[in-house]
This record gives sequence, C-alpha cells and structure tokens, in this order.
Amino acid sequence: MRAGPSQEEVRRHNLGTLLRYVHVHGATSRAELTTRLGLNRSTIGALTAELISQGLVSEAPPKETGRAGRPSLVVRPESEKIFAYSLSIEVDRLRAGRVGLGGRILEQYETVRPPGMSADEAVEPLARFVRAMHDQVSDDARCVGSGLAVAGMVRREDGMVRLAPTIGWVEEPVGAALSAELGSPGTLSIGNHADVCALAEHARGAAVGCDNVIYLYGDVGVGAGIVAGGRRVTGHGGYGGEVGHMVVNPYGRPCDCGSRGCWETEIGEHALLRLSGRENRTGRDVVLEVVDAAVRGDSQAQHALRHVGDWIGFGVGNLVNIFNPEVVIFGGTLRDVYLVAAAQIRSRLNAVGLPACREHVRLRTPELGADAALIGAAELAFERLLDDPLIP
Amino acid sequence: MRAGPSQEEVRRHNLGTLLRYVHVHGATSRAELTTRLGLNRSTIGALTAELISQGLVSEAPPKETGRAGRPSLVVRPESEKIFAYSLSIEVDRLRAGRVGLGGRILEQYETVRPPGMSADEAVEPLARFVRAMHDQVSDDARCVGSGLAVAGMVRREDGMVRLAPTIGWVEEPVGAALSAELGSPGTLSIGNHADVCALAEHARGAAVGCDNVIYLYGDVGVGAGIVAGGRRVTGHGGYGGEVGHMVVNPYGRPCDCGSRGCWETEIGEHALLRLSGRENRTGRDVVLEVVDAAVRGDSQAQHALRHVGDWIGFGVGNLVNIFNPEVVIFGGTLRDVYLVAAAQIRSRLNAVGLPACREHVRLRTPELGADAALIGAAELAFERLLDDPLIP
Repeated sequence: MRAGPSQEEVRRHNLGTLLRYVHVHGATSRAELTTRLGLNRSTIGALTAELISQGLVSEAPPKETGRAGRPSLVVRPESEKIFAYSLSIEVDRLRAGRVGLGGRILEQYETVRPPGMSADEAVEPLARFVRAMHDQVSDDARCVGSGLAVAGMVRREDGMVRLAPTIGWVEEPVGAALSAELGSPGTLSIGNHADVCALAEHARGAAVGCDNVIYLYGDVGVGAGIVAGGRRVTGHGGYGGEVGHMVVNPYGRPCDCGSRGCWETEIGEHALLRLSGRENRTGRDVVLEVVDAAVRGDSQAQHALRHVGDWIGFGVGNLVNIFNPEVVIFGGTLRDVYLVAAAQIRSRLNAVGLPACREHVRLRTPELGADAALIGAAELAFERLLDDPLIP
Repeated sequence: MRAGPSQEEVRRHNLGTLLRYVHVHGATSRAELTTRLGLNRSTIGALTAELISQGLVSEAPPKETGRAGRPSLVVRPESEKIFAYSLSIEVDRLRAGRVGLGGRILEQYETVRPPGMSADEAVEPLARFVRAMHDQVSDDARCVGSGLAVAGMVRREDGMVRLAPTIGWVEEPVGAALSAELGSPGTLSIGNHADVCALAEHARGAAVGCDNVIYLYGDVGVGAGIVAGGRRVTGHGGYGGEVGHMVVNPYGRPCDCGSRGCWETEIGEHALLRLSGRENRTGRDVVLEVVDAAVRGDSQAQHALRHVGDWIGFGVGNLVNIFNPEVVIFGGTLRDVYLVAAAQIRSRLNAVGLPACREHVRLRTPELGADAALIGAAELAFERLLDDPLIP
C-alpha cells in the first residue's frame, strides 16, 4: 500500500506515459497525444521537450496534412538511437538482435542450437553476437539494457534456468553467466519464451487491445504466456504458464517431467510425428511435412492431426474455463497444426468450454512470427526506461 | 494509457490509501501510518482530519502506551457508522448481513434455500432481510452500497447469472431483480462466490500478504477464486475460475455442464457420497458424516476419501503448474475433505506439479469460514469508497 506520488513523481510518470505511448503506437501527433493522454497542450509540449533533451524522441512536422492551419508536430521514438539487446534461447536456435525503441528490430543474428548444447556453450555465441553488434553501434546511440527469453522455467529474481526439458538443462545459472559475459551493456532481464511472446503479441500483434490473452507456444514442449486483466500472469517465482504439464490424460504416456499424460504428450511434436509414422524424426520441417501430407490427402497424417487437434481443443477448453480469455493465439508449430485442424480444435473446445467462458473467445495465429521472442525480450529491457525515462 | 494525476487527484488517492489501510489493518497509530504510507506527519494529520470530517474514521489516544512522551493518536475506521449490505446466494442457504468499514460483520441473517427455489423466490427474502436491517439502522449511519455473491457464473457488467448449475439457474437477471427490490440502499455490485471468498481471505484471512492465491471452494460444485500478482483473475466477462469444469478424466462421468470427466465429477460432493455408499443423500452434514466415519476406521469412507483426495491433488497439481501460487486454500466441504485426505492430496500434487511450481506452495484451510462470502461481498461494495473516499 503506497501513498500518492509527489509532483516530481507525477512529472516522471507522465514522461513515462508519453514515451510508452509512442513506443507502442509509433509516431503520434501532439494533438493526438493531448487527446489520448488527457493532458493539456502546454504539458504535452513540455514533456516532449524534456524527452527530446534526453534523446528519447524526436519531433518534426507531418509529411503532409491536406488541412488548413498550422499542422500539429509529430513525436516519434528515437528507434535508431535508443535500443536494447535482445536474445532468445530456443530448442533448435539461438537468436540475438538489437531492437530500437518503438519495437523495431534493427539487426539480428541467429545460429543453430545443436541438440545437447550446454548452457555455457550457448552463452558464448550469444555474447559474441552482442559484442559484434556493440562494436558497430554509432557513438550517439544508447543501450538501455538487455533482455533474454529462454524456452524453459526461469527464476524471476536471478535468471536461473530451473528446468528446460526440451533444451535439456536443469538448474543452469544462465542469467549470471550471460551477465558476466556481456559486461557493460546494461542490466539483463530474463523471461520465459512463451511469456515474452505473449507480451509482444499483446503490445504489437494479434492481441492488441485484449486484456485477457492466452498465447500457446508449442514445439517439442508446450507452454503459455498468459495475460489476465491486462497484466502478465507469471506466478510467485516466475514459473506460471506451464500448461504443457497440465495433465489431460491420466491414462496417457509418461512425460519427461516425471508425470504422465501431460498435455504436451498429446499435442507436442513427438505425438504428432509418432502418430503420422515419423517416430524417429524431429523439428519444424517434419511437422510442416505432416501438415502438407494431410492437406494432400494422406490419411495417416490426417488421422494424426485429428488426434492432436482434438487434444488441443480439449486443453484449450480447460484454459478457457479457467481464464475466460478474449483470444487464444497458437504459436510455434502449433500455428501450423491449428491452420489445418481448426475445425477439430473448435469442436472439442465447444464441448469442453462452458458457453459463457467461450462465447467471445477468438482463436488466432501470431502476427509477429519468430520475431515475437526478440521483440518480447526487448520489452523486458525497455520496461525500466518506460517506468522512468529519466533513469540514467 | 493514462497520464499522471493532478494535485487534487493525488490528495484523493492519499485519502483512499489511508482509509484502505485502516479498513484492512484496523486501528493504526498516526506514527505507524506515517511509516507505512511514506507520508510526513503533517500530511497524515491533514488527511485524517478530512476523513474524520467525512465521518469515515475517528481518532483517540491509545488505551495505554507504557512509554514516555505524548502518545501518537490512533486512527480507526467508523465500523458502526459506515457500512455495506452484503448478500450471498449459496446452494443451500441465503445470507444477508451488514458489514462495517473494517470488515466487521455487524449483524447477519440466514435462511435455508430449499432445492428448486427460483431466482425471484430467492430475491424476496434477501430484500426483506435488508429492509429489516435498514429499518433499525441509526440515523447517523451511512450505507455505501451493497454487494452480492452468487454460487454461479455472473456477468460482471450487469449481474446476470448466466449459469448456476448447483442452484439450478440459467440466465437469471438476479442483479436487476435485486436492485429493483432494494431500491434506495446504494449501488449493487455482484461477484462469484469463490471469487469474493478469495478476496476476503486475501484481505483478512489465510492468504494475507500472498500475491498468488488459489481459493478452491467445493460443495456439489467446485469453483476457484484466483489472485495472480496481487489482483483477481476474473476474465473477459467475469466468468474465469471455473476450475470445476477443467476436464481431468476424459474417460470419466458425464457432468451437468454437458461435458464429461470435469474435476467436480471426481471431487464434488456427489462423488464422495456415491463412493462412500450414500448415493441418494446430499449436503454438508452427510459429507461430515463420511469424514467422521473415515476417522473412525470405516473402510468404505476411507476409500472414498482416498479417491477424492487423489483427484483433488491431481487438479491442484494442474493449477499449480499454471499459476505457481504461494497458497492454495480449501473452502466449503473441501475443507473437511482436505483435513483427512491431506497426505493423499499432497502426494498426488507432488507427482503432477513441477518442482519449481510447487516448491513454495502451502495448502491451507480458510480462516474466515462461512463469513468469507459476506465479508468478500462487502468488499465489492466498499471498493468504490476506498477508491475515492469523497464520493457522495
């Protein structure tokens, strides 16, 4: 319970609100800012001037207005100069990027993550990518921090990767190792891969304007990033959203986690490939091969997708009853499965979901694709700046 | 996205913060308020004076201090004078109360709700209770609104009861009907029974200080009130938390909702009574009879409780993986089941829950008992006042 802010705190809050607005919505005229933020013109002018002096935004006349009178100046985020490093450790890939204020990916690198690659081995190329980008950055650019997404359970307070079964890591201090390697370029914030993808789709993708969102990400494993009442649901230690280990079939197969019949044993990549007769293969390409085969009429592939689609609808029905969301987004290879098994998914969702809970729910594919992880991890890094733009 | 508050808004915010503090924590010295709210002594003095002039708090010297020097005045909520009417429609009971600021139940009425009682028939005695209380209220007391908890799915915006299977209601405009009956005593706010119980236990009961809470309520049906990151999870229309309709056993029994193998078909009252050989009976007393029989060594009752306990642990494990909570509270008849089946519940929870998600979770019984619904429904009514104590 905290008392109201001082005048100085109010000013900083307003600076953050204005900066966040143009960060999320892009270039915006002063006139529109006045309306959207409910502040008067002179306050908007003063706040803008201060953000310009901090090098965070720039201001220019609009290209053309077609209207009489003096046009309202347009405020835009300094995307080229203010940036975060953004990193992602995924099952088969390591990504690194430089993301400008406003959520624009300025440059990115990626490399394959071979099966069995250790945490230390993964940290090294990521740090190398960051150094390579850092060496090229112009002198007037400013790094506000770094964000890392990991496809596993990450302790919020220190970035310890507690368990990442699909990557094969247990209790790996990835946050500490990467911070040590990176050295100078600012504070490192770490989050779960599905969580940061949800953050990105919520801010700039398929869930813009929705306060209750489930972003499901699937490959070998399945996880969710959840937004409820406009805020991320991450739980006490940061481990929430492990919907892949919601047991849906008590008589099902053993799961890597030690339990049995977890949702990911029924809808993960392994289930789809096994059912379609591709037991010993793995990876996104094989999933796409199954999807293609089904579309071409291959009955075994169709059967596999019906089975998996049915179980997807089953688990989504459970989540809809628990969260009553406006939108469920299917990311990773679940995107492709959703596209060909949508009818099956919807049918089972309708059987499991209570009418009131599901009546307004939309099923969607992501809008940001593989960029979501980099954009979302950068959001973690921008968070501090947006909370207080005067922070050094 | 909203800009920062004006000075007047800050003052109102601080008034609300101070009032909320004494509402939740009870009588508090000015010295402690200064520390807790981070405001200086003169501001606390001015805010207190304003709240006194509004009749919301009173101030007096402490009973005895045992310390030298002038004692700090103690600020307490005007529990006798500022109150809300609080109502609860439960499976077998209708309750009504008058709850003073500070969460104190000043008086309460209850009556049996016979099976089959319609929404109109239930509204009538509740309105009568309120009128009876209203006639006795002293002239200097002030009603700030009314709150209603319903054991069913309630549309947030207008209090329409969409579905309350255990009560037997579908699409009943209870909010509108009750508002019409009550007439004068202020705005009516409506919430789900488990949701408001969670609110009460979070503010004043077993979950004080916890930001991530699952309050499970069970009788014939099972529902949850969920707090994530310190805020209630209620979903897009207000229907979230329907964990009783999370399907846990795809090969299980048909559920009243039309689905099959819902959690409440395995852990609700009917399952326990059926398994213990009491198929045609119902109600809390019969559940307590089963619990007693198990404690006395009745093997069929023990078997029934093991079965139900195992499924409780199963579903709680799923919820722990999804929410990573600090505490799970067992309310309703699940409280009694938990007390005798705790080992079974914990064992299955440990098998289903991921170690990181469950490592800090405590299993608890409620501290507020049957009062939770009245206290929680009153919180819905107090919310407006606490947001802005100067509201007329």
